[in-house]
Amino acid sequence: MKRSRIRDMGIRVGSLPAGPLDRITDVPGVTVGHSTVTDALHRTGVTVVIPAPGNLFTEKLTAAVYVINGFGKTVGTVQIEELGCLETPIALTGTLNTAKVADALTGYMLGVCARDGVACRSVNPVVGETNDSKLSLGSDRPVGEAQLAEAISKASADFEEGDVGAGAGTVCFGLKGGIGSASRTLEIDGKRYTVGALLQTNFGSLPDLMVCGIPSGKRIEKILKSESAPDPAGDRGSCMIVIGTDIPLSPHSLRRVLKRAAVGLARTGSYLSNGSGDVVIGFTTANRIPSGGPSIRKTEEISQERISAVFRAAAEAVEESVYNSLAAALPVAPRGGFSGYRSLSEFPEALKTE
Amino acid sequence: MKRSRIRDMGIRVGSLPAGPLDRITDVPGVTVGHSTVTDALHRTGVTVVIPAPGNLFTEKLTAAVYVINGFGKTVGTVQIEELGCLETPIALTGTLNTAKVADALTGYMLGVCARDGVACRSVNPVVGETNDSKLSLGSDRPVGEAQLAEAISKASADFEEGDVGAGAGTVCFGLKGGIGSASRTLEIDGKRYTVGALLQTNFGSLPDLMVCGIPSGKRIEKILKSESAPDPAGDRGSCMIVIGTDIPLSPHSLRRVLKRAAVGLARTGSYLSNGSGDVVIGFTTANRIPSGGPSIRKTEEISQERISAVFRAAAEAVEESVYNSLAAALPVAPRGGFSGYRSLSEFPEALKTE
Amino acid sequence: MKRSRIRDMGIRVGSLPAGPLDRITDVPGVTVGHSTVTDALHRTGVTVVIPAPGNLFTEKLTAAVYVINGFGKTVGTVQIEELGCLETPIALTGTLNTAKVADALTGYMLGVCARDGVACRSVNPVVGETNDSKLSLGSDRPVGEAQLAEAISKASADFEEGDVGAGAGTVCFGLKGGIGSASRTLEIDGKRYTVGALLQTNFGSLPDLMVCGIPSGKRIEKILKSESAPDPAGDRGSCMIVIGTDIPLSPHSLRRVLKRAAVGLARTGSYLSNGSGDVVIGFTTANRIPSGGPSIRKTEEISQERISAVFRAAAEAVEESVYNSLAAALPVAPRGGFSGYRSLSEFPEALKTE
Amino acid sequence: MKRSRIRDMGIRVGSLPAGPLDRITDVPGVTVGHSTVTDALHRTGVTVVIPAPGNLFTEKLTAAVYVINGFGKTVGTVQIEELGCLETPIALTGTLNTAKVADALTGYMLGVCARDGVACRSVNPVVGETNDSKLSLGSDRPVGEAQLAEAISKASADFEEGDVGAGAGTVCFGLKGGIGSASRTLEIDGKRYTVGALLQTNFGSLPDLMVCGIPSGKRIEKILKSESAPDPAGDRGSCMIVIGTDIPLSPHSLRRVLKRAAVGLARTGSYLSNGSGDVVIGFTTANRIPSGGPSIRKTEEISQERISAVFRAAAEAVEESVYNSLAAALPVAPRGGFSGYRSLSEFPEALKTE
Repeated sequence: MKRSRIRDMGIRVGSLPAGPLDRITDVPGVTVGHSTVTDALHRTGVTVVIPAPGNLFTEKLTAAVYVINGFGKTVGTVQIEELGCLETPIALTGTLNTAKVADALTGYMLGVCARDGVACRSVNPVVGETNDSKLSLGSDRPVGEAQLAEAISKASADFEEGDVGAGAGTVCFGLKGGIGSASRTLEIDGKRYTVGALLQTNFGSLPDLMVCGIPSGKRIEKILKSESAPDPAGDRGSCMIVIGTDIPLSPHSLRRVLKRAAVGLARTGSYLSNGSGDVVIGFTTANRIPSGGPSIRKTEEISQERISAVFRAAAEAVEESVYNSLAAALPVAPRGGFSGYRSLSEFPEALKTE
Repeated sequence: MKRSRIRDMGIRVGSLPAGPLDRITDVPGVTVGHSTVTDALHRTGVTVVIPAPGNLFTEKLTAAVYVINGFGKTVGTVQIEELGCLETPIALTGTLNTAKVADALTGYMLGVCARDGVACRSVNPVVGETNDSKLSLGSDRPVGEAQLAEAISKASADFEEGDVGAGAGTVCFGLKGGIGSASRTLEIDGKRYTVGALLQTNFGSLPDLMVCGIPSGKRIEKILKSESAPDPAGDRGSCMIVIGTDIPLSPHSLRRVLKRAAVGLARTGSYLSNGSGDVVIGFTTANRIPSGGPSIRKTEEISQERISAVFRAAAEAVEESVYNSLAAALPVAPRGGFSGYRSLSEFPEALKTE
Repeated sequence: MKRSRIRDMGIRVGSLPAGPLDRITDVPGVTVGHSTVTDALHRTGVTVVIPAPGNLFTEKLTAAVYVINGFGKTVGTVQIEELGCLETPIALTGTLNTAKVADALTGYMLGVCARDGVACRSVNPVVGETNDSKLSLGSDRPVGEAQLAEAISKASADFEEGDVGAGAGTVCFGLKGGIGSASRTLEIDGKRYTVGALLQTNFGSLPDLMVCGIPSGKRIEKILKSESAPDPAGDRGSCMIVIGTDIPLSPHSLRRVLKRAAVGLARTGSYLSNGSGDVVIGFTTANRIPSGGPSIRKTEEISQERISAVFRAAAEAVEESVYNSLAAALPVAPRGGFSGYRSLSEFPEALKTE
Repeated sequence: MKRSRIRDMGIRVGSLPAGPLDRITDVPGVTVGHSTVTDALHRTGVTVVIPAPGNLFTEKLTAAVYVINGFGKTVGTVQIEELGCLETPIALTGTLNTAKVADALTGYMLGVCARDGVACRSVNPVVGETNDSKLSLGSDRPVGEAQLAEAISKASADFEEGDVGAGAGTVCFGLKGGIGSASRTLEIDGKRYTVGALLQTNFGSLPDLMVCGIPSGKRIEKILKSESAPDPAGDRGSCMIVIGTDIPLSPHSLRRVLKRAAVGLARTGSYLSNGSGDVVIGFTTANRIPSGGPSIRKTEEISQERISAVFRAAAEAVEESVYNSLAAALPVAPRGGFSGYRSLSEFPEALKTE
């Protein structure tokens, strides 16, 4: 079965144009890699978003965090919020693996700095998570150093979506969820900029799913009637959101952009339920922060009067990323003690506008 | 022309039942009053939400604030955020009237306390606003003490929506906006509780308007093609949101509920644009806080494990309130230097699901 | 009686050098003015900090707010926090006057814009307050348009401290409080910058007062033993803090600086008590924000690696400002229903280090 | 050499009485344990604060976080802030060990739940840190599962302070820092309550040290003149702060209490420098939150009008904890590539009030 994207299924989200890949990697320099763990007990993994090539510790990125709903274990937010910068790749994984992956990411960055002859006695690993325990045993924490290394080594601009990496075991709106990505571009003073999103989707219950206003969840429920009930614990999951851009933003303005991720989620049917740990981590590749640079450095900043278009781009990219995660995920058959989950791509009729 | 509500136009929002009035005044004890100022230069006013009968200064309410987007002049948020309580009615008005209404509200509360023989040397008036300058001259600040007094004296459980009070001069999605309200009820441990919302809608541009997923804004645009263009400055407005409930919540949990107002706005087509000052003020009538009470008082608190239903209720009530503000507002003809604005109620065909 | 400053009494605060005036007006372009209301019933007023010459609405300043303890009625914080800018002078006054002064400041800015031919349909007045009801009747709100106009017209780099303007009726550590100011300078990459503070002090009870570690409050208590008891309601007051600088800071970094005002307060003996509304409003004269400027503008930003010196400067300037407010305030004799308050300057022996 | 406490050196901090142990373990049910790692390359460890006996996952504690300065890697804050609860012990360690200890704490809690027959698919480990790299090699991350297990197994009401556990390798004001603790008690409506603090101190440079207003740092500098210079990198460290109490507080009110920890730090000479990751984690043993309890549970809440005494207690306990960490830490001789650090207890004359 081929992995679809939502536009393959005839859906266009919002009004702004997408970048050439319609993925977060349309932001120049951004790469993404996965490592997937699948065996009789596990369906989990790790996904890394590498915001720029080179040593991120010595050339930090301007960054921000916005916690939509903090029922989650994301690591690294405190320092990003205080200093407005990111100094490692961003890793996503299953909940109980979080600390192990954070330790692996610490080790990885220490290694990079040792290799580059840079003294590093402290580093802030950034790891997000959602709970993939509907499809994977978590207590033995199967994701660590080896998987992180694989994901980093495989990172590229062209990457898979759906049930891969940190999305291998997630469930979204009672369907198979996973990793989804999208991008939007906009022109500012004659130059084209990109806003990209990458999501790990693991939230919502089937009847709530809307696709661009179409009540697709209720339609699928009708189709499945004799076959399966909507997942009653469906709203216990979470959604990790990474947003990258090349627009010049200060941490304060970037945080305003990240806040609009909630618009994208709400459009798909999310109520930001109590159990959903919805956390947004964002960076811009503009305004890099060199270690040991000048005391006062030159920066650039988009006018707040022009920022609404960036808000719209972020909201659209997040909304489409949810749909792409659902379209690209292949269905999972029941096995062992785990239920099976269908794929949105099996229900093209649920997306018809008639 | 009769004022409609969105359910009169055949639309049901969300899945939870509304209260008997489907208004914020379904929360026992809550009343709402308006004073409207209309003349050649003005179309403005003030709306008050009185959260409970009696002296609010000596029997404060547990309260919270959530700032969705703070491009606004709301008065009184700092103290609510710190102390978690509300000690005056909440007034809504046009932007430039804000301070004058806050002074009038200060005077009103001093008067109430003087009447009741209560020493009051400090009081925190709460006043929200949106900018009604598309339909009203603001610089002479025509709303003050007399209008506040009228609104308070007229407050009742049964109140008008649409272009009245603080909604007299607002524009929403390029149509006539105004005051809208709705409520949802839910059962907890065998007892029925209510969540109500009241909005002053003044945001959005026409093509973005969605009504329960239906692209109504684009349809109206098509109908109006030869007649009028969507308002280009449409996304400069704001949305004030008041949420009341009788569910026992601490300030911390109440703030979580308020945050879900953004879900309701996003569903209607809002991108939470830069220019839109979207501020949520909320209170519960449970857990009242008596002045001079015991050092340690008994309170109640809903379990976070049960709070998702409250989130859903808040999101649905806010979404429906936007539609009710649009349905109830009567169209305004152009006059003097001011443009005219149509009413959603004039376009029943734009709401058809086919 | 001459108004003292704490350095006239032999006290040096901290380790960084002060600017030439040792006041907030050492920041180039900043001016301060007062209007004082004194009669049989009143001892109140208004103080304005004008952060720069010219039209602040069309040339906004980068700004931030930090709420140390929000038991207060400060107006204008929501928009500063969201947009990171200041577009009016900052006014300080007595609690119940706040809204009236905010309305006057609105009118003033509308007038400035009308004069300059600038369209202004919305403006965010910024007004802080503390409660001067120990020395002044507040319920008739005697400070408004005329007093604001006077304070603005008198604003200059050279201004009085102590019991003037918004400090006329304040009480601090059981002594006469008032307006206090101080500055610190620091060199960055060979250029000298200034951090200045201006406070309206109205907090604390006498035994808690420390002056650079000296238990001055307890010593004064001993001296006064037969004369007066420490004010039992002494910790109900508040402290408004304005910080200005010419160091290039983004809103995010500026907020970090403002947070260090709490260090200065704590050093003087404050516990940031519940009743003390301690709010910090700050601006930098660098990184001005022109209305209608380019979509992406050039800015500058101090490295976080160099920012600790700015933190220290802010903490020292705030600490010294408290002492200056106490040293400069003249004692007030009892009259009518109001108690009298002594001045710190009457107790030079309480500051001896032996 | 015996470990001192600051009161053994003749210093009394503040005005409220301490509990019988003058430690955080005066709060009934709280225990503390250490595991220390010392060898040629390491001087590090882990300290755990166990807030209550029994299964913390099924009987969660009301909790809050306040980030004074977020240059730090503390794990677990996002969920505490959102849900207002704590479900694991709090572990403190050296920076680079943080993730490894978080993984160990995850494993520990999974084990506790397995033992108790409780389903646990997600748990929020809470781990704070400061950077002990002045005295310990960090890159090999020597603290993990075994050390955590030892610290937990040794936890008791009676515990050591100074250079033990997570304090083994810390440096504070250029002297040997470590773990310090203190408590304060206060009577509310005839019942005695306790506020306790435990700190891992690793911040400040020598000349800034003040002990209850005495310029002890400058005095020690004078004594040491020919011997050693104040540590130039002294302000790069951090301070982790744990506050526990049995006073009934909601998460919102508890956070207000935690904020006053900054007062305690400021009194000792801290400027909350950029490099100092100062994070406060707090809990109350009142208002426990049972899993699967009733939808609406009974709680209690101290009146905000009475909360100032709690603020004062927290500030005093934090201030004294800093001094106790310094008094109890034994001096460290230089070895290998590491400098030596003196102990405050070696300089009794620096604490004289004359």
